[in-house]
Amino acid sequence: MSQPISLGLVGLGVIARAQHLPALKATPGLRLAAIASRNAGLETLPSYPDIAALLDAEPDLQAISLCTPPQGRFAQAAAAIAAGRHVMLEKPPGASVSEVQALSALARACGVSLFATWHSREAAAVAQAREMLADLEVRSVEIRWMEDVRHWHPGQDWIWQPGGLGVFDPGINALSIVTRLLRDPVRLTRAHLELPENRQAPIAAQLDMVAGLQTRIRAQFDWRQTGKQTWEIVLRTDGPEIALREGGARLEVDGEARISAPDQEYRALYARFEQLIARGESDVDLAPLQLVADAFLLGEQTRVAAFHD
Amino acid sequence: MSQPISLGLVGLGVIARAQHLPALKATPGLRLAAIASRNAGLETLPSYPDIAALLDAEPDLQAISLCTPPQGRFAQAAAAIAAGRHVMLEKPPGASVSEVQALSALARACGVSLFATWHSREAAAVAQAREMLADLEVRSVEIRWMEDVRHWHPGQDWIWQPGGLGVFDPGINALSIVTRLLRDPVRLTRAHLELPENRQAPIAAQLDMVAGLQTRIRAQFDWRQTGKQTWEIVLRTDGPEIALREGGARLEVDGEARISAPDQEYRALYARFEQLIARGESDVDLAPLQLVADAFLLGEQTRVAAFHD
Repeated sequence: MSQPISLGLVGLGVIARAQHLPALKATPGLRLAAIASRNAGLETLPSYPDIAALLDAEPDLQAISLCTPPQGRFAQAAAAIAAGRHVMLEKPPGASVSEVQALSALARACGVSLFATWHSREAAAVAQAREMLADLEVRSVEIRWMEDVRHWHPGQDWIWQPGGLGVFDPGINALSIVTRLLRDPVRLTRAHLELPENRQAPIAAQLDMVAGLQTRIRAQFDWRQTGKQTWEIVLRTDGPEIALREGGARLEVDGEARISAPDQEYRALYARFEQLIARGESDVDLAPLQLVADAFLLGEQTRVAAFHD
Repeated sequence: MSQPISLGLVGLGVIARAQHLPALKATPGLRLAAIASRNAGLETLPSYPDIAALLDAEPDLQAISLCTPPQGRFAQAAAAIAAGRHVMLEKPPGASVSEVQALSALARACGVSLFATWHSREAAAVAQAREMLADLEVRSVEIRWMEDVRHWHPGQDWIWQPGGLGVFDPGINALSIVTRLLRDPVRLTRAHLELPENRQAPIAAQLDMVAGLQTRIRAQFDWRQTGKQTWEIVLRTDGPEIALREGGARLEVDGEARISAPDQEYRALYARFEQLIARGESDVDLAPLQLVADAFLLGEQTRVAAFHD
């Protein structure tokens, strides 16, 4: 058996500790060899303050996984790619669509694999729902993605900054699932953004989209929902109604539960990254980020009450 | 010699009368055969109230040119494409990037030519500047596009609506030139938008962009400039300084005038449309609109004084 691919992890925040570290431990083809993080490290591994130091000190690292906030991601990814390393990006893959397109061109020029991940596409129900939908005509899609920002993003200031996406940070997960489920390209036709008067990013948004010529998609994103949290996508078809609940962990067909599986999203992402590297391929699908950019471009904005953490 | 291609023009506003009609008259390969316009018509040609009526009544029309505001453009273009007609789009090609991507897919599926035009790319100085730049390294680019909105867009309400782009409606012309001049992809890194407190679209914007890894591009768009109007792009290189002034009509090399030619932009567009149809090709470059969408996505917004026409 061949040697595992040595990988460096950049960014050691909540998502890295909760998802990336356990997933890497469960992926024999990848070996976590070093960390870069401004404020933290792991006792068991070489740790560096930033990616420049990491790349410099670890010339044998073959791959880099970035879990830092999107605003600084381009410079880090470009440095890694220019140094000949394969790169995996947390979602969203960048702060603008054009910068990820530029990264993509750079990865091609440097002959490395670039993987823009969308972890929600690996949720348990997505693959089976997509398979069922292949034989059905989708009439309409209703997305409701409503959660309590204070619970899920306490003190995460970058998320409210320009490029941090606000409520689209979770909402883009729903968009990543829908653009995977439907065969036709999805276009945005109308958007309404609610911005707290003291913030640069929306706390709620409503989107109208269309897939193909006539499949209506409505999305409601809201960060002000306390109590029960809602992450669901309901597809009405010419056959049964298909619902993905709990962020895609649960599949219901005409109200009957079909799948309810534990979260394996990040294991699937790292398995795919390993596969892309082995095949010399990249996977950069910008459709979810494009829809968010279009929502900002085309969206009507309303100012709402100030938000304080 | 073969028959000219029969074409219908949709939208009969300022740009259609000032540019499209004279350019069509000067293009022997295209024959303007009919008009669709809600409020106006031409005495010499069959005129219809909308594109549905036009397509229905004129089954022999081979091509459609759309000069209506971008917000309604998708439905019109999709109808024309689905009816098997070639389509040319005024800039910007749509109200969102995703809807033009969807149009592009539809045109491919229907086997017709789609041409998303950027008239400023046909300005007299652009081709020669691009040729000169092929042998030079560009160090930095400075864009200043400053005009008086009251003079150029009197009473054009759509331009202030979501999807109307505000000051990016002229600014996108500069972006279309720069993305044609430079070989490397351009990415947006920072943006600042100034929105009048009574409007949904910016009256001014400042953008920071980068081409390739290190060519800095700065753009200043402003709609509040009275008196002398400014549409200029200055490129500092490892050789001479190259300046495009008057929207690209005038080329200066180290301050010395090289070209100052009358406007032939729309003739060039229609000649290109004719060529695309003959070759069975499409030309849909979304880079300029992508940069604008990214500026909304990533831009910091400031509210400024109300604007009244």
